[in-house]
Amino acid sequence: MLFGGIEAGGTKFVCAVGDENGNIQERVEFLTRDPGDTMKDVTEFFSRFEVKALGIASFGPIDVNPASETYGYITTTPKTAWQHYPIKQTMEKALGVPAGFTTDVNGAALGELMLGAAKGLDSCLYITVGTGIGAGAIVKGQLLEGWSHPEMGHILVRRHPDDHYEGTCPFHHDCLEGLAAGPAIEARWGKKGKDLAGHPEVWKIEADYLAQALMQYILIVSPKKIILGGGVMHQKQLFPLIHQRLGELINGYAKLPEPLSEYITAPGLGNDAGITGAILLGKQAYENTQK
Amino acid sequence: MLFGGIEAGGTKFVCAVGDENGNIQERVEFLTRDPGDTMKDVTEFFSRFEVKALGIASFGPIDVNPASETYGYITTTPKTAWQHYPIKQTMEKALGVPAGFTTDVNGAALGELMLGAAKGLDSCLYITVGTGIGAGAIVKGQLLEGWSHPEMGHILVRRHPDDHYEGTCPFHHDCLEGLAAGPAIEARWGKKGKDLAGHPEVWKIEADYLAQALMQYILIVSPKKIILGGGVMHQKQLFPLIHQRLGELINGYAKLPEPLSEYITAPGLGNDAGITGAILLGKQAYENTQK
Ligand SMILES: Nc1ncnc2c1ncn2[C@@H]1O[C@H](COP(=O)(O)OP(=O)(O)O)[C@@H](O)[C@H]1O
Ligand SMILES: Nc1ncnc2c1ncn2[C@@H]1O[C@H](COP(=O)(O)OP(=O)(O)O)[C@@H](O)[C@H]1O
Ligand SMILES: [Zn+2]
Ligand SMILES: [Zn+2]
Repeated sequence: MLFGGIEAGGTKFVCAVGDENGNIQERVEFLTRDPGDTMKDVTEFFSRFEVKALGIASFGPIDVNPASETYGYITTTPKTAWQHYPIKQTMEKALGVPAGFTTDVNGAALGELMLGAAKGLDSCLYITVGTGIGAGAIVKGQLLEGWSHPEMGHILVRRHPDDHYEGTCPFHHDCLEGLAAGPAIEARWGKKGKDLAGHPEVWKIEADYLAQALMQYILIVSPKKIILGGGVMHQKQLFPLIHQRLGELINGYAKLPEPLSEYITAPGLGNDAGITGAILLGKQAYENTQK
Repeated sequence: MLFGGIEAGGTKFVCAVGDENGNIQERVEFLTRDPGDTMKDVTEFFSRFEVKALGIASFGPIDVNPASETYGYITTTPKTAWQHYPIKQTMEKALGVPAGFTTDVNGAALGELMLGAAKGLDSCLYITVGTGIGAGAIVKGQLLEGWSHPEMGHILVRRHPDDHYEGTCPFHHDCLEGLAAGPAIEARWGKKGKDLAGHPEVWKIEADYLAQALMQYILIVSPKKIILGGGVMHQKQLFPLIHQRLGELINGYAKLPEPLSEYITAPGLGNDAGITGAILLGKQAYENTQK
């Protein structure tokens, strides 16, 4: 049985077809243009297969609340052509199959839970530290969603005493994303993150912000595994710095899974976490129609 | 059909028997002494009824992870007589019925979801601001638990610029609980909270900390309703101050349910949220045995 997955990003759309175990059988990428052109390519790709259902893991903000009138829409994105775009309904109509729908990071969390670093567990948190910061989570086997999807990138952190950079966030200036996403690193130090590998002061501040964020996520959601992905996390020296700083911050208060180097880790699926999760979301959408 | 509920607190145990709708039929309170004496009273009370199952909503920390060897235990509490006490197993043996087990605040969240301020929803957050600060949540109809239960009271907040009080938390000094629970208010101002009603500067700082916490909880869990209980929240003037400050902090980033005065509210069940949730947890434990 085949299921389709779409990882809908602001830069590119990844589309793939996989089996009920989430194994990818064929995969393509399209540049994100306006919805008409983009979805034409997407539909053509899938029309070559007999997929039973689709999973869409999308850039946002999106409406994930089934009780809402705009459920299934991309909503107030700065990409104006995609504002208020019913991506779920459009794909369901085009292919005549049901579609599951969640955020890109929830999709990645699902992929990692089923086949990646959190395999065998019923709970995990997936964080991407890239152009922005976002996180998705699975709790007791279900996607973490409520009134809306989480927006974990914009939580408050305490400024590092050596950091005088104002922050990039247009809403909050110095929220987590405003201080710790890739563009903030570049603006603070005047160089791209990948060219700052040899500067320990850069990663000390970065690890402090990410450890503060993890502390909040852990105290609030208590995930069984934490996976850190995205471009900035290519700086592997961040992992031990984060483990150490988190230990200092928690200061013995909460008993965490040991060792922290296994609790807080890189994606098991690398760049395939999101598209794999999208395929598995498609499988869930199919199973929901069989109930 | 009757179900038993236990709201196990560090000061008192509330025990009640209720029907499948959570309506309380009989209720008693016992002072918390050592486990032997306390549980003797509890067992005697319930032995007068034919309860099908029990729900225990307990002070903590407790072990809520079914995969753990000490699942069902009160663990590292400062109340030494209760350390490593298997409260769930003890009650199951004493009454010969299965017991559901979660935190006191998760119990209150369940009560409010089924019969209180969040009735009809599948998601809510319940926060108590009292001697300590704790929160429980329901997500997609399930108690929010993972590796452990949340410890939301100890998240980091940014110090209010007018606040020079060091904080009460032995682990973190100036975490949320260290700065905003009842004892912190008393230590900062030299008077009990209930005697500070006429001092707006007190509640302005308090509302800032609670609004910061709500911002984190909302961005991470996105609950459909937020309920604020506990002794400190008897200061009703806090509610509009929190609504206003939260709006300033979010600054238009996330679309919240409107009006905030309905989204963030007092408990619908008053002091009965926890014991009602415990009874409903007992009902769930019974239903799980019928599956
Ligand atoms: N090796 C690297 N080291 C540090 N930062 C990097 C590295 N590679 C990419 N980045 C930063 O990560 C951001 C891009 O994140 P990425 O996850 O690749 O894409 P996106 O978030 O747009 O999907 C950019 O700000 C970039 O500077
Ligand atoms: N009316 C009030 N106004 C402000 N603070 C109060 C009020 N009543 C109780 N408190 C404070 O709340 C704390 C007790 O919280 P409570 O929820 O009653 O009990 P506990 O948290 O121990 O279960 C104390 O620190 C007390 O000073
Ligand atoms: Zn922000
Ligand atoms: Zn603390």
